[in-house]
Amino acid sequence: MKLVQKRSKKTGLPPGTLVHIGERRPDKTSLQVFHYNAGGCQEFQPSPMDQLSQPDDESVMWVNVGGVHHIEVLETLGKQFMLHPLLLEDVANTDQRPKLDDYESYVFVVMKMLSLTDRKEIAVEQVSLVLGRNYVISFQENGTDVFQPVRERLRGGKGRLRQSGADYLLYALVDAIVDQYFAVLEMMGERIEALQHTVVDDPKPETLNDIHALKRQLLFLRRAVWPLRDVMNNLSRSDCRFLHEPTKVFFRDVYDHVVQIVDTIETLREMVSASLDIYLSSVSYRLNAVMRVLTVITTIFMPLSFIASIYGMNFDYMPELRWPWGYPLVLAIMAAVGVAMLILFRKKRWL
Amino acid sequence: MKLVQKRSKKTGLPPGTLVHIGERRPDKTSLQVFHYNAGGCQEFQPSPMDQLSQPDDESVMWVNVGGVHHIEVLETLGKQFMLHPLLLEDVANTDQRPKLDDYESYVFVVMKMLSLTDRKEIAVEQVSLVLGRNYVISFQENGTDVFQPVRERLRGGKGRLRQSGADYLLYALVDAIVDQYFAVLEMMGERIEALQHTVVDDPKPETLNDIHALKRQLLFLRRAVWPLRDVMNNLSRSDCRFLHEPTKVFFRDVYDHVVQIVDTIETLREMVSASLDIYLSSVSYRLNAVMRVLTVITTIFMPLSFIASIYGMNFDYMPELRWPWGYPLVLAIMAAVGVAMLILFRKKRWL
Amino acid sequence: MKLVQKRSKKTGLPPGTLVHIGERRPDKTSLQVFHYNAGGCQEFQPSPMDQLSQPDDESVMWVNVGGVHHIEVLETLGKQFMLHPLLLEDVANTDQRPKLDDYESYVFVVMKMLSLTDRKEIAVEQVSLVLGRNYVISFQENGTDVFQPVRERLRGGKGRLRQSGADYLLYALVDAIVDQYFAVLEMMGERIEALQHTVVDDPKPETLNDIHALKRQLLFLRRAVWPLRDVMNNLSRSDCRFLHEPTKVFFRDVYDHVVQIVDTIETLREMVSASLDIYLSSVSYRLNAVMRVLTVITTIFMPLSFIASIYGMNFDYMPELRWPWGYPLVLAIMAAVGVAMLILFRKKRWL
Amino acid sequence: MKLVQKRSKKTGLPPGTLVHIGERRPDKTSLQVFHYNAGGCQEFQPSPMDQLSQPDDESVMWVNVGGVHHIEVLETLGKQFMLHPLLLEDVANTDQRPKLDDYESYVFVVMKMLSLTDRKEIAVEQVSLVLGRNYVISFQENGTDVFQPVRERLRGGKGRLRQSGADYLLYALVDAIVDQYFAVLEMMGERIEALQHTVVDDPKPETLNDIHALKRQLLFLRRAVWPLRDVMNNLSRSDCRFLHEPTKVFFRDVYDHVVQIVDTIETLREMVSASLDIYLSSVSYRLNAVMRVLTVITTIFMPLSFIASIYGMNFDYMPELRWPWGYPLVLAIMAAVGVAMLILFRKKRWL
Amino acid sequence: MKLVQKRSKKTGLPPGTLVHIGERRPDKTSLQVFHYNAGGCQEFQPSPMDQLSQPDDESVMWVNVGGVHHIEVLETLGKQFMLHPLLLEDVANTDQRPKLDDYESYVFVVMKMLSLTDRKEIAVEQVSLVLGRNYVISFQENGTDVFQPVRERLRGGKGRLRQSGADYLLYALVDAIVDQYFAVLEMMGERIEALQHTVVDDPKPETLNDIHALKRQLLFLRRAVWPLRDVMNNLSRSDCRFLHEPTKVFFRDVYDHVVQIVDTIETLREMVSASLDIYLSSVSYRLNAVMRVLTVITTIFMPLSFIASIYGMNFDYMPELRWPWGYPLVLAIMAAVGVAMLILFRKKRWL
Repeated sequence: MKLVQKRSKKTGLPPGTLVHIGERRPDKTSLQVFHYNAGGCQEFQPSPMDQLSQPDDESVMWVNVGGVHHIEVLETLGKQFMLHPLLLEDVANTDQRPKLDDYESYVFVVMKMLSLTDRKEIAVEQVSLVLGRNYVISFQENGTDVFQPVRERLRGGKGRLRQSGADYLLYALVDAIVDQYFAVLEMMGERIEALQHTVVDDPKPETLNDIHALKRQLLFLRRAVWPLRDVMNNLSRSDCRFLHEPTKVFFRDVYDHVVQIVDTIETLREMVSASLDIYLSSVSYRLNAVMRVLTVITTIFMPLSFIASIYGMNFDYMPELRWPWGYPLVLAIMAAVGVAMLILFRKKRWL
Repeated sequence: MKLVQKRSKKTGLPPGTLVHIGERRPDKTSLQVFHYNAGGCQEFQPSPMDQLSQPDDESVMWVNVGGVHHIEVLETLGKQFMLHPLLLEDVANTDQRPKLDDYESYVFVVMKMLSLTDRKEIAVEQVSLVLGRNYVISFQENGTDVFQPVRERLRGGKGRLRQSGADYLLYALVDAIVDQYFAVLEMMGERIEALQHTVVDDPKPETLNDIHALKRQLLFLRRAVWPLRDVMNNLSRSDCRFLHEPTKVFFRDVYDHVVQIVDTIETLREMVSASLDIYLSSVSYRLNAVMRVLTVITTIFMPLSFIASIYGMNFDYMPELRWPWGYPLVLAIMAAVGVAMLILFRKKRWL
Repeated sequence: MKLVQKRSKKTGLPPGTLVHIGERRPDKTSLQVFHYNAGGCQEFQPSPMDQLSQPDDESVMWVNVGGVHHIEVLETLGKQFMLHPLLLEDVANTDQRPKLDDYESYVFVVMKMLSLTDRKEIAVEQVSLVLGRNYVISFQENGTDVFQPVRERLRGGKGRLRQSGADYLLYALVDAIVDQYFAVLEMMGERIEALQHTVVDDPKPETLNDIHALKRQLLFLRRAVWPLRDVMNNLSRSDCRFLHEPTKVFFRDVYDHVVQIVDTIETLREMVSASLDIYLSSVSYRLNAVMRVLTVITTIFMPLSFIASIYGMNFDYMPELRWPWGYPLVLAIMAAVGVAMLILFRKKRWL
Repeated sequence: MKLVQKRSKKTGLPPGTLVHIGERRPDKTSLQVFHYNAGGCQEFQPSPMDQLSQPDDESVMWVNVGGVHHIEVLETLGKQFMLHPLLLEDVANTDQRPKLDDYESYVFVVMKMLSLTDRKEIAVEQVSLVLGRNYVISFQENGTDVFQPVRERLRGGKGRLRQSGADYLLYALVDAIVDQYFAVLEMMGERIEALQHTVVDDPKPETLNDIHALKRQLLFLRRAVWPLRDVMNNLSRSDCRFLHEPTKVFFRDVYDHVVQIVDTIETLREMVSASLDIYLSSVSYRLNAVMRVLTVITTIFMPLSFIASIYGMNFDYMPELRWPWGYPLVLAIMAAVGVAMLILFRKKRWL
Repeated sequence: MKLVQKRSKKTGLPPGTLVHIGERRPDKTSLQVFHYNAGGCQEFQPSPMDQLSQPDDESVMWVNVGGVHHIEVLETLGKQFMLHPLLLEDVANTDQRPKLDDYESYVFVVMKMLSLTDRKEIAVEQVSLVLGRNYVISFQENGTDVFQPVRERLRGGKGRLRQSGADYLLYALVDAIVDQYFAVLEMMGERIEALQHTVVDDPKPETLNDIHALKRQLLFLRRAVWPLRDVMNNLSRSDCRFLHEPTKVFFRDVYDHVVQIVDTIETLREMVSASLDIYLSSVSYRLNAVMRVLTVITTIFMPLSFIASIYGMNFDYMPELRWPWGYPLVLAIMAAVGVAMLILFRKKRWL
């Protein structure tokens, strides 16, 4: 998760010029097409340059594009489905803010897809979705598979998915993405719970780095989710003719989920801030406690040394020095003073 | 109160699939039905699979469901009252944000019910309420009874409740829930008052944990109450045909209560923040005071030891060493210096 | 000023049940009625159970009720003027947020009346005002008299008050209450000015308590005044038929005052926050300065003691010990070292 | 700049009673009238009680009143121009928030006039402006002259001013006032730049007072300018019939200036806050550095004194004491230890 | 980047007076005109006083003015294109806030152009753009060339630019400016990434200055970009007749970019704040660690010196002094005590 994406290679180019922005990944661009209606579901993997077009009957076509760094593939698809150059530019640029653009003849949605890697790290990927009258095109930055359950439901043919139109497919894809957010939040929540114990029990300088890493991740999460609220709200109230009333109820449900996620992120942010406060106060308390103990030790020996140095003086007439019991007596006094101070400091809870 | 609910078992399932999210509790799902009108009130406890249906005369039916983890019960009720699958999904998922959904033929309200346990802890439970033309269905996460006063009023038959429609029953239930919030706030207020004395009089490291526990509880309270404001505002202005004008005045009253609660929570949050400030400054002041006292002690003995070490030197010609009154004189000087420093430091209020 | 009012005795009661919430005061409920028009002004004190009714000519009646803890009085008045049960409930509950409710046939305003006690403390009291076609009922929590000037103007008959309708009387009462806020703010302002000198000149641990007491008072003030802004704005734009155009100009003036008050409260809050910052930095600076002085003293004696301890060593061959001028020379060296360090530390401004 | 103005002498008076609030200044109230049209410009100084009235032809009259503490002058003018009593009350009360009131037959604007005194301090003065069909009345708290350039332009007769109506004169006056704000901001900006060097190079306890004085001034500035934004916006969109379309463009320009000023104030506030942070961290760093140096000195002498005290012991059998080279050897060891520690601490950058 | 621009020379001048505000640069004002349509593109550099006028056919004219400090040039152009005096005043004053003014017959846009100098510093320059029916006038503060790519595209004639109207040219210029913002952000992002390592690994007092310099730059960036959001939003929704529907889609794209930039700036600001926190805590931790080590050393020598001072006492009867093994025994005890304390402190991680 970089703070700012390298975008400078685009500077000065005319608008609509397709330039891939993001980390270039080695794998080929993969295309997968589902063509289905209530009756059946066809599935095939065209080569990128194959001729595709939106179905002219009531069946629905879903084109899933894995990888957006091959500009030619985007251009071919753009021509076949008559997509606006700015839309394609946004697809190729993986540093987009989630948004909803309504281009009369299709709707364009950009989202961030979050998932957990095997090492429990957060992977971010941009997904762009185009909804036409009876087709959906989904562009994934690379081929990570959070859409697998949707595919299974298409193949299985059970439930509402095959019976419904392209708008419901869009919903199914969006819902699959948003569902993943909960998994990420769960993991974050667990880490923060763990952190809250660490800052109290065993605060170390590294803990500070952990806190700031979490803070940063939550900042990125918020950036990915916050604009989604408006996107989902607009989808559920859109007067676009491809979005039917019954499907909007489902988008309202996704909207509720997103609001819930935003809420949770804010709560987690407050917990992390609180952890930072506890950490700082905890560390400072410990450092001070150490200093206090050390200073108490020094303070106890000061008067003892002073007594010893008195009897180290070389005056001719120091009668105590001649007493046979002088030495043990002084030792006893020293012990008494030392023990008295120890008791006093303990009582005052300074030690 | 967990930061983030485990929701991951739902990931990938088609929407409308009923999955209970929350802590699974052992007790059976209990159903209780009140069927009443101005004339009388029938009360019975059907088995979960019994046939129920909304009354077709002007009487009102209240179905109270205790426990939402038996998916079959929800499905049966859903079929009998023709509830939308997404609504049932929200009922089963106890990690909902308070909200109001208007499904044409019924209104759906989700709230958090707060109550105090015997050990003065806050128990949170989700309550989902469905208001139809002449029925109300209330789903409780488990069977804790804040609705008892409403039941008594139904049985007693006095007051406005039996004379009014289902909308007034909804109000009565919502009002009973919101009333509980005040009890919770009262308890929080008392704890914070106590805390404010603790941080001044006897700040300890554990106090910090108390402060953050209170902060966290207030955060959760706010999350539960904040969205309720919109819910109540919408109910009191709703143009839903089941909500009659006279009842809306009552919902406006609940709205006022919720605004008052939100206000109080914000005030409490500010008081807790102030307590944290006082705590930190108080602890730091005390630590510093201890260090100052210890350092003053050390500082007083430094010159005394120095005087002693002078007369511990072994020069052949140190006339003072030969004086008969040398020793007592030096002791007297030491005492004078020590007392002078003590007085000085006391006067400067350093000791 | 308690953080949260005890409200729990109301929990579970049906809505509209009158329960007094607040501190029960011993004195009787007092009623005072002014019945006036441009021509004259009648004044009498009915017993609480007397029959009262709104005048049917163009004269105006003002019923002032001192004390709201006698439920029966409220009920009697409620019947006589046909007031909504929820309105009476709000009157009896002295823990209301300022608000404006428009009940078709009358307007209901709740405000907080602030006044300064003889000991310069802030006294808070709830005032509920009902404006009907040609009557105003004012409920005071107890009988503190900020309405005295209004009474005098009614009796005197000069000015606009006797010539105008009930809406102008409402304005006069509201204006009298808001005028008191300025007195309270003046007092707060003076305290904060004083505080700002204290934190610089003589910060003590008690100062911290003063700061937080002021902070808390401002928090309560804000809670009392903030919602009043909307109330006054709504009054000045209301389309209620009892409020005549010329009177609305006066309510706009009160609105301006309230906005001014809110502004001033925010400024005072920022000044208090700044005082806290200065206090903390001032205290920490002083503590550190003390430690520095003490440590400087210790540091000066370290090398002196070291020199003395060298000549306290018992080597057989230490030629300096045999020199006749050895002792005074060493004393001179010690004095020189001590003075040099003193000068150095003074120059570096460490002492 | 007091936190809260004394307003209490007004408490309890009927609304519309003229009471001067502010510092009473000794000088007389001065009146100056300009009566002009495209053709010529008459200028005279009537006595306060002279008969004045709005011109009945298309010429424009500007009445400038210096000093608002003579209530009789305000009352006379109020009668002559038929001004609302509340308007006069606002003029007399110099503790107004900037605002725009539209009284059908005239528009009333209250602003704060800022200027720099010779000693570079900010002087605040309230200016109230009344715009009628063909007259402008300006009330100044005292006679400070920021309107001089406007007077010159009126006398000179060049430019748009004499050709235009009363609305353009109002604009010219408002613009003259707002222009002064930039001068004040420039001075503040320079002080803050200077402050930013001070906090790094030479932070002293007085610097803290400077920072808070600046903070307070910016707070007052913001209070004076913030509401002006709405005033100017409303003037530039007003549908008042005295404000002609071409003049509104000019008010929009003033609006832009005010927004710019608000922006700059916010930036300056952030810079002052940053300065406070740097100051605190800088002071704490310096204090700590001093303590560290002192402690290093103490730490270096500890082992040296220890070595000396070993050879101060009086054991019979301490062979080193008999060695002829014992003493110089021990001195050499001490020097070596001391130098080694010095080098070590220097290397670790502790000294 | 000065906090506040010197504007005082304008004070008191009549509105519409052209005064250059900003740093006066020595170079001459340069004019460059492109006159083009789909067919061809003419390019010439008129002398500032040449007669120019908007084309009366469908071709488009772009007048680029480098340098705004020659008032006469602005006046000449203002007459030729009939520009409002306030517009020219805004062009000459380089301390404008980004804004969009709609003057019926042309649209006026002010923006800040950011670019990176060779030394990686941010250069700010004001660009004012006037869009008429078929002309665009661009005023640059000085002649820095971010429009070069646009010129190349005009000369080349490829793409949409030559085919489209003046509105698309405006878009191309605005887009070129906004593209530069990303380059600046990238550089800032890299610096902040570097900073985040510095504060953990090697925090120095200078780091604090770096942090505050970054904070200040981000503050200025935000001031430049924040108002641009509204400008772009208004352009993309404007009902101005020079802006055609297809071009508005492009302005919406710029709007998206600006929102993205604002977002990124906020994120960077939070990262810088976090860096400050880490810096402070890191510095304080290090200082405290040093003090702890020094105090541990002192504490270890305290008991050792005490033991030595015991056997430095001069009592006649101290049997240990007579033992032949007394001296080595005491040395052994001292070593044991020292090592024990070392081990203890190490174990407690105090050393």
